[in-house]
Amino acid sequence: MADFTVNILGCGSALPTTKHLSSAQIVDLRDKLYMLDCGEGTQVQMRRMRVRFNRLAHIFISHVHGDHCFGLPGLISTLSLLGRTGELVIHGPKDIESFLKPVLHLFCQNLQFDIRFNVIDTSSHELIMEDRSVKIYSIPLIHRVPTCGYLFEEKQKDAHIIREMIDFYQVPVRCLKDIKQGADFVTGDGEVIANHRLTRPAEPARRYAYCTDTIYNPRIVPFIEGVDLLYHEATFAEAELKRAKLTFHSTARQAAEIARMAQVKRLMIGHYSARYDDLSELKKEADAVFPDTILANEGLVVPI
Amino acid sequence: MADFTVNILGCGSALPTTKHLSSAQIVDLRDKLYMLDCGEGTQVQMRRMRVRFNRLAHIFISHVHGDHCFGLPGLISTLSLLGRTGELVIHGPKDIESFLKPVLHLFCQNLQFDIRFNVIDTSSHELIMEDRSVKIYSIPLIHRVPTCGYLFEEKQKDAHIIREMIDFYQVPVRCLKDIKQGADFVTGDGEVIANHRLTRPAEPARRYAYCTDTIYNPRIVPFIEGVDLLYHEATFAEAELKRAKLTFHSTARQAAEIARMAQVKRLMIGHYSARYDDLSELKKEADAVFPDTILANEGLVVPI
Repeated sequence: MADFTVNILGCGSALPTTKHLSSAQIVDLRDKLYMLDCGEGTQVQMRRMRVRFNRLAHIFISHVHGDHCFGLPGLISTLSLLGRTGELVIHGPKDIESFLKPVLHLFCQNLQFDIRFNVIDTSSHELIMEDRSVKIYSIPLIHRVPTCGYLFEEKQKDAHIIREMIDFYQVPVRCLKDIKQGADFVTGDGEVIANHRLTRPAEPARRYAYCTDTIYNPRIVPFIEGVDLLYHEATFAEAELKRAKLTFHSTARQAAEIARMAQVKRLMIGHYSARYDDLSELKKEADAVFPDTILANEGLVVPI
Repeated sequence: MADFTVNILGCGSALPTTKHLSSAQIVDLRDKLYMLDCGEGTQVQMRRMRVRFNRLAHIFISHVHGDHCFGLPGLISTLSLLGRTGELVIHGPKDIESFLKPVLHLFCQNLQFDIRFNVIDTSSHELIMEDRSVKIYSIPLIHRVPTCGYLFEEKQKDAHIIREMIDFYQVPVRCLKDIKQGADFVTGDGEVIANHRLTRPAEPARRYAYCTDTIYNPRIVPFIEGVDLLYHEATFAEAELKRAKLTFHSTARQAAEIARMAQVKRLMIGHYSARYDDLSELKKEADAVFPDTILANEGLVVPI
């Protein structure tokens, strides 16, 4: 069972087209949903992908450009119409509040739920939030406006108990929680049963890094080293390197360079310029530096 | 050739779904485009329907609820990226300016084109604008916030000249314009040729009325009497009459009542509540009062 997936709602750039919508992703981790960016049309994409609106409590905005946040007013209105009562937290650079506050004032005066803004300092790598399942950090990026990426670091799960051994030593149920978390077991006779005889290690904790929009910036490498999946923008092909620099975006080759330097397990590229009808050029370019790059696409679900 | 069409981009209501998007239409009249409402996702629908962005110069907003205007920020950003320079006029109740001004300030500081707001008094029936092809009037509607409909009244076209008669009387080219507009022709001999011998009458001027959102309101009948096409909201079926009243919306039967009273040529209903998977109930209800009602649908092009 994939209990950690990245769901691509939109992976186009500033000009949404019939092929690629504006940026939006859902990270689904142990049945909680975390949204990354929210371009126009995100709420309808959620319906298309059968995402359950009520499991969403945190939205992370990378930067305050329209193609990353124009879906928020509609999404918030819809959450309200669906009867939401639980708090919604919107994390992002401070202008996200400047954008939404007047809109909420005009359209959502009777919200039955609270919206809390968590203003992110996009210049530093910091723990932004944690819950039972995950720690989420900011990743400083360089773009035309304050921008950050986000790093999802799954919390280590409990070890698996070995049922036969638990039965054999007649371990009481009340001890199981501690054993799963590493405790030894002491029998009635005072015999100490080492934890490793009672458990198998949990799967290693997984990490996902979301880096968009950004100019090529090797300084992010230490923050994303070895992640299981890196999403890195690749707005342009290398032939448009000049334009990439000028607009503070990356090429597919540059995205792959970052992935290679950070020795990530897998790379997914996206945020494609509307000029690319055929993405094979971008994939080929990335593959040459970092083999088997994944192309983001609307509707794609990537297990981590 | 259909030189007057209504193009349905979205005909859902407050909750956009995978079946019906938020309200938006394009009136295409003699190659100029006029937009009616602009819900979230309108710009992508324009691409799907191959609407040419540069032919759009006027947007008419019925009222400042999100499902009628949340597509504006994205559309304006896209017009800017496409290199627009011509003025864009946004007609609507005064809050449309309160919504857009802060958004434009944050996202569109370097627009290369002017946006002009034409604030509409939604309580009266007034001429809002006219150009070479059309006069557009407001229609006062009753909803939870200031709301108006829009009436498109095509200007009378010139009469058709009868080529054989023009040749026979050797009418000089410079006289043709006046003749098309009703002038008689005087030959070199002083003979007066009556206009009706030189021309066939033009097709009658056509009218389209757009009425959404509104509670059942027979007072609009005089404004829309005899129009070639009436779009009237039908958010609910008659079984939800109470809810319709409560939310200041109409039922399908009520929309048909208005059409019948106004003796319009055709009725199109839309703005369907998300609760209706199957619209045949709404159509049946309307047909019983006003036969052959058209159901609006995304992608539908209705010639007038």
